[in-house]
Amino acid sequence: MKLKGQEIDERLLKLPGWQYVDGAIKKEYKLKDFQEAMAFVVKIALAAEKMDHHPDITIEYNRVKINLTTYSEEGVTVKDFNLAEKIEKFIGA
Amino acid sequence: MKLKGQEIDERLLKLPGWQYVDGAIKKEYKLKDFQEAMAFVVKIALAAEKMDHHPDITIEYNRVKINLTTYSEEGVTVKDFNLAEKIEKFIGA
Amino acid sequence: MKLKGQEIDERLLKLPGWQYVDGAIKKEYKLKDFQEAMAFVVKIALAAEKMDHHPDITIEYNRVKINLTTYSEEGVTVKDFNLAEKIEKFIGA
Amino acid sequence: MKLKGQEIDERLLKLPGWQYVDGAIKKEYKLKDFQEAMAFVVKIALAAEKMDHHPDITIEYNRVKINLTTYSEEGVTVKDFNLAEKIEKFIGA
Repeated sequence: MKLKGQEIDERLLKLPGWQYVDGAIKKEYKLKDFQEAMAFVVKIALAAEKMDHHPDITIEYNRVKINLTTYSEEGVTVKDFNLAEKIEKFIGA
Repeated sequence: MKLKGQEIDERLLKLPGWQYVDGAIKKEYKLKDFQEAMAFVVKIALAAEKMDHHPDITIEYNRVKINLTTYSEEGVTVKDFNLAEKIEKFIGA
Repeated sequence: MKLKGQEIDERLLKLPGWQYVDGAIKKEYKLKDFQEAMAFVVKIALAAEKMDHHPDITIEYNRVKINLTTYSEEGVTVKDFNLAEKIEKFIGA
Repeated sequence: MKLKGQEIDERLLKLPGWQYVDGAIKKEYKLKDFQEAMAFVVKIALAAEKMDHHPDITIEYNRVKINLTTYSEEGVTVKDFNLAEKIEKFIGA
């Protein structure tokens, strides 16, 4: 179920660097180099496949841009925040 | 060395689906599913690391968008076409 | 539930190149090169994570060895055959 | 050029956990889970492709076993130690 603006804002408070733009939540990560960027993308891909919920991912050398939305709901849902939280943990891991 | 417009056009003739837009050559591939898309991206990443020339890659579920340019030359070079040819071969492989 | 010898033999008939050895089913694949081998491994990894059932995988340049067993059942189960069938399809894809 | 026993021993002193066994240097890494293990393997694969020197890699859920030797020299060379050092850095990264 699509989240409302206030719910999105509250949840974003716990996800530093994530922003709500055009019906999606997004963040740009900067890694050390291309190898670290690709390893990060592979972790995201495995988590996404497990949850059956897939972000848009852009790789620009050591930068990885993530864009999360739920197409079937035409907006941001709890699924998007669950995956965003997982992605945040990969950086700390 | 940056290629001129005519050279780019000639080289693009051998690369179906590739287009020259805004100082870069680009193509969008549609794979069977996310698993095939990620496998394709990993092959591109390994080829890119070997050549030390890295494309911008966007993954949207089963779609993979490639954008190739040579930043140091502020335009498209032979390196971009070499990598584009390698990427084309991955699809046939 | 652990499969019996006869069931394993019958199921192996549909999986050319797979063998039952020491409580596991296994196969060695030969790919074109290391890039193709890694792409194959990434597809297996994504399928495994989705099914929450993980094979042992060995990569030796262009060779990929798969070993499937269900540790909790101390033997081969339907899960192993389901993943083996998926892996076979990746080669044809 | 194949390294001699004493050179190998000296170099191994700087690589905790690595051992010389049967003409190869090897180490087993334990990661948090399968996702971290695969990300580690992808970093190793990218570094290997860049150096054009490829280790044998075995993935057993969260365990990654690396085996390094130089086939053309029938023994361990500086190339193997260079790649081992890179792999060690990935864990710290």
